[in-house]
Amino acid sequence: MLEITRDYIQNLQEDIALGKDSAIIALLTDVHPADIADVFEELRAEENAYVYKLLDRELAAGVIVELDEDVRERLLQSFTSKEIAEEVIEHIDSDDASDMISELSDEKIEEIISHIEDEEKASDIIDLLNYREGTAGALMAKELIRVNEKWTVAHCIREMRKQAEELDNVYTIYVVDDKDVLLGRLSLKRLLFSASTTRTIIKDIYDPQTIYTVLASETEEKVANIMEKYDLVALPVLNESGQLLGRITIDDVVDVIMEEAERDYQMASGISEDVEASDSIWTLTRARIPWLLIGMAGGIASAYVIGIFDIEKHPEMALFIPLITAMAGNAGVQSAAIVVQGLANNSLRMEAITRKLLKELAVGLFNGLICSSILLLSSVVLHFSLDLSITVSVALLSVITFAAVFGTFVPLVLNRYKIDPALATGPFVTTANDIIGLMIYFMVGNMLMTAVGA
Amino acid sequence: MLEITRDYIQNLQEDIALGKDSAIIALLTDVHPADIADVFEELRAEENAYVYKLLDRELAAGVIVELDEDVRERLLQSFTSKEIAEEVIEHIDSDDASDMISELSDEKIEEIISHIEDEEKASDIIDLLNYREGTAGALMAKELIRVNEKWTVAHCIREMRKQAEELDNVYTIYVVDDKDVLLGRLSLKRLLFSASTTRTIIKDIYDPQTIYTVLASETEEKVANIMEKYDLVALPVLNESGQLLGRITIDDVVDVIMEEAERDYQMASGISEDVEASDSIWTLTRARIPWLLIGMAGGIASAYVIGIFDIEKHPEMALFIPLITAMAGNAGVQSAAIVVQGLANNSLRMEAITRKLLKELAVGLFNGLICSSILLLSSVVLHFSLDLSITVSVALLSVITFAAVFGTFVPLVLNRYKIDPALATGPFVTTANDIIGLMIYFMVGNMLMTAVGA
Repeated sequence: MLEITRDYIQNLQEDIALGKDSAIIALLTDVHPADIADVFEELRAEENAYVYKLLDRELAAGVIVELDEDVRERLLQSFTSKEIAEEVIEHIDSDDASDMISELSDEKIEEIISHIEDEEKASDIIDLLNYREGTAGALMAKELIRVNEKWTVAHCIREMRKQAEELDNVYTIYVVDDKDVLLGRLSLKRLLFSASTTRTIIKDIYDPQTIYTVLASETEEKVANIMEKYDLVALPVLNESGQLLGRITIDDVVDVIMEEAERDYQMASGISEDVEASDSIWTLTRARIPWLLIGMAGGIASAYVIGIFDIEKHPEMALFIPLITAMAGNAGVQSAAIVVQGLANNSLRMEAITRKLLKELAVGLFNGLICSSILLLSSVVLHFSLDLSITVSVALLSVITFAAVFGTFVPLVLNRYKIDPALATGPFVTTANDIIGLMIYFMVGNMLMTAVGA
Repeated sequence: MLEITRDYIQNLQEDIALGKDSAIIALLTDVHPADIADVFEELRAEENAYVYKLLDRELAAGVIVELDEDVRERLLQSFTSKEIAEEVIEHIDSDDASDMISELSDEKIEEIISHIEDEEKASDIIDLLNYREGTAGALMAKELIRVNEKWTVAHCIREMRKQAEELDNVYTIYVVDDKDVLLGRLSLKRLLFSASTTRTIIKDIYDPQTIYTVLASETEEKVANIMEKYDLVALPVLNESGQLLGRITIDDVVDVIMEEAERDYQMASGISEDVEASDSIWTLTRARIPWLLIGMAGGIASAYVIGIFDIEKHPEMALFIPLITAMAGNAGVQSAAIVVQGLANNSLRMEAITRKLLKELAVGLFNGLICSSILLLSSVVLHFSLDLSITVSVALLSVITFAAVFGTFVPLVLNRYKIDPALATGPFVTTANDIIGLMIYFMVGNMLMTAVGA
């Protein structure tokens, strides 16, 4: 693992400036493509283009697959379509190739494909481009080992030598019939131990038992769930007739899982696009402003709510406004987060919605009772007036209970209408809870403060 | 994939109540252990114990590995130590076994280990129990394929047959010297294609090139980062002398990644333990109350801040309290989340802390300027008084800028002191930002409102 230090990058940049090609090559020798990609993230676009040309074609292609989208886009701009086809696409898997060019214009895509010499690869890529992003089809690679059930072990090994050349990892050998319908799999282990009896027919040694598969139209979330649950390293993808189209490998799914987790996390923290700390100030600003504006709209609405309830008559009620809004927000987000996680990992199986809401009501009541008793006690100790303390306690109980139920309800509804439920943990629900919480607070205040005090 | 419906569970429960063993077995035939584990989560402990005894030993062991900790604990309570050793441990990998029994008392662990007949396995488990949770050592399995560089291919295949029996998946064959020091690896593909020339020596065909390894003392986060970055399906674990101790497989790492993501997410939403929607009301309450209490303490502190600044003189300032606290919270969490993600995926490499803070200052200023101009404009349109509008705008600019910098600073400091930086996205920082935001608001108000108005 390469430790990318500031010195390392500076050395590299100096060598690039001076055109010391052999020094650059020496710095990058025996470095994994994924590490070189990290180095590229630290360099300027023209420096990347310079270094790129010095790398061995195979290695360079590995680097380009690992690059972040924006860095890759800038690098590819210095390439002609012919160069992209011959120097990049030739050396990478069909799924990486289609991912990479799918970001480009239709015209450019056609141009690139017309320059791909390997016709099978070109048609594989065209196939993959047709699957919608986020489906199993778009995630799969066409490269896999496929053998016919009628072949002998010897024939199988011979064919595999051919097919396996373009594959980094052989996890499983897929067994198909004459129509390419998937029948089962043959483990490499099994084949190895049968290798001495080369006239055995595949049909007699493969494993026809339940093999997990997905349709090409299935979502990538489903794919991730299946592979995670059943500890699979590769998952074959079929069409509606059961024909074998490709396979999805666990490394791609790890990426899906991590992206999904990051998306949920960003949603919960109010960031609207995929940003990194190293992005530009403008990108970072743009990713945050939508949620801030929602928060502001909520704040103005809150000002109206407070205005309506005539704060001037009971200005001491202002003291606990932050407490009420903070608690409404926290309690709501907590409930929403539990539902969002439950939906994400499929653990929200059987409970009906009403039962879930009732349960959440109980949890909210519990939490509310604990908090409001503590508050009542402490505000007496801290010498707030009794009628204010009672008002705040009663309001707090209602607010926490309401927020807990509301926080559970919203993601369930979003999910039913196929909207990402993680939206519910973001500033949207917090803001709604703030406003509703304040309404409850002032309604309770209006009733109690007039009854008890003043 | 089994669809677990309410009907399915009801049928099963009826069959259990009536003791219809063959019907139960029929319902669970050809069901994957991971699915049976899901079914178990829906049943009562005594029902689980009943079903468990009906399953084939091998299958049953697979189920118990997949169970949630709490369900498993309750199930294991109905077993004697001897049963656990003979009927469970015998049939599962050493890493799963040590995970499972590490939850038990020392006494019980000793008892169970004394009942394990396979001495090698017993010593493997004892070894694994010695690694601290969260390290590569605790994550690895001792089961792997290891061959000596001096062996011939024929000898190697013979030995592998023996070793591979207890392995579900052979990903890589590890090549060691006489002292068990890891030299490199041999792909199964390579071995298969050399299988015809059985007198070849392993030394001549294995791949001695850079192979990724970790020390047993390394953290599981590091392991996950390496395997994710380099797309590995298995990673060998070494001791300080380079001897091969075990291997970590990608399925275990997927679990680590998901758990970590869930933990961060829960932290950000203010949940203090690993809970699910299906947990009991009391567990759910307990997981949430700590953050609610922090929020409440913050709310009481806020009340003091507002009290100090004599709200009765300018009660209209109360109107914008929710806006100020909401924006302080949102802006702070956004900044913190970006840093937390950057730390988690190692993309925060080279920038120095001061540069990051300066950048965040710029982003905060930008966002603050946008928000406060919009606010100034809209509050004029909405007929708030001019001095109040100016006060709120100026305060908002300062609050957002401060919160952005503070939100960046806190997770960096936490990380430096080896505290989980995700803590910074939780209610803790939000609460601090609330209070500081209010102070800024009222300080600005005290200056401007006295200067302009009143």
